[in-house]
Amino acid sequence: MSNEIHSILPEPTLRRLPWYLAYVEILKTRGEQHISSTRIARALNVDSSQIAKDLSFLNLRGKTRIGYEVTTLAEKLTEALGFRVAHRAYVLGVGSLGSALMSDSGLSNYGLQIVAGFDTDPEVIGRGDLAVPVYHIDDIEEVMAANPADICILTVPAEAAQDAADAAIAAGMKAIWNFTPYRVKVAEDVVMSNTSIYAHLALIYNRLNVKE
Amino acid sequence: MSNEIHSILPEPTLRRLPWYLAYVEILKTRGEQHISSTRIARALNVDSSQIAKDLSFLNLRGKTRIGYEVTTLAEKLTEALGFRVAHRAYVLGVGSLGSALMSDSGLSNYGLQIVAGFDTDPEVIGRGDLAVPVYHIDDIEEVMAANPADICILTVPAEAAQDAADAAIAAGMKAIWNFTPYRVKVAEDVVMSNTSIYAHLALIYNRLNVKE
Repeated sequence: MSNEIHSILPEPTLRRLPWYLAYVEILKTRGEQHISSTRIARALNVDSSQIAKDLSFLNLRGKTRIGYEVTTLAEKLTEALGFRVAHRAYVLGVGSLGSALMSDSGLSNYGLQIVAGFDTDPEVIGRGDLAVPVYHIDDIEEVMAANPADICILTVPAEAAQDAADAAIAAGMKAIWNFTPYRVKVAEDVVMSNTSIYAHLALIYNRLNVKE
Repeated sequence: MSNEIHSILPEPTLRRLPWYLAYVEILKTRGEQHISSTRIARALNVDSSQIAKDLSFLNLRGKTRIGYEVTTLAEKLTEALGFRVAHRAYVLGVGSLGSALMSDSGLSNYGLQIVAGFDTDPEVIGRGDLAVPVYHIDDIEEVMAANPADICILTVPAEAAQDAADAAIAAGMKAIWNFTPYRVKVAEDVVMSNTSIYAHLALIYNRLNVKE
């Protein structure tokens, strides 16, 4: 039954599934038993045939007139999104954003377990106020051997982004979650995801300015 | 000359401009004087005609054989992205992610000034360890009158997202930066930007699983 999480899901589907999960979790706490794709569609402003198609990737099919069972739907969505399993990660660059992510305990509810941080500043490496140890970036191969992780959360300054990503990949990391505004280049077999906080801010500022 | 930041820029352009800025800032610290769109193209894996088009929105045109002046380019990009001006914001939901963003001092380099937080939990409202005060969400109109802000950073639990956004808009806020996985609905004149941390995580997990 686990074939659904080992198959590649389209990126737009992966963007919509968390919306469905958030909505279904709310219905669950309200004690609702069933939900139709039509009602999800109305609540989330997504086409109902699109929802049915997205959910068919999880081998889920609603029953005529009844719809989907809320509990099953929540479970299957959590599983398909990978939120049930702990995925081990390092934070590279324990500056303001890096340490903020390290202290965001909520990420563990979404399957992310940050097990170590890396930096080059001796004062940061000595920090004792974080839940996990901070090592020198030069020690990454050693730490990987003792306490490995797959996902590298990249929060170094832009000018250090490529070198840090290269070091992480050389040490055997398999995915880069890039929070820097720098376009990091990686080999094709490395999973790459860019979260551009700065682009979102720029979009908000631009739309606000136009309105004024 | 400020007409460029009062014109609406296409979303894909706004996504690419921060990459150019990050790269140009690196060249600036290296003391380089000029940069051609061909070289930016090679460094960032973006088509050079696309770069020229994006930069023409800022009324910037490179000179034949010389290219763009690095200092001017960095300045114009910073201005066009809105990073030079302080944009006032509230954080709604001072949980783990909300307080993490409030303690991320780096955001001020990108034009974001968080001036207050809001929550419903009395213990959170009493917190003295954050740089700005935390108020009860019911007091948002009062706080808006004394210490206004345009941008609402939404980091409440998903089930509280719509109500919190409605309260922010009713109080006069003009933009919602939604970090929750809930699809918040707003009137058309409200600027809406979704940063889906959970969708990025799901994408990484899915691609990692497929590789294994």
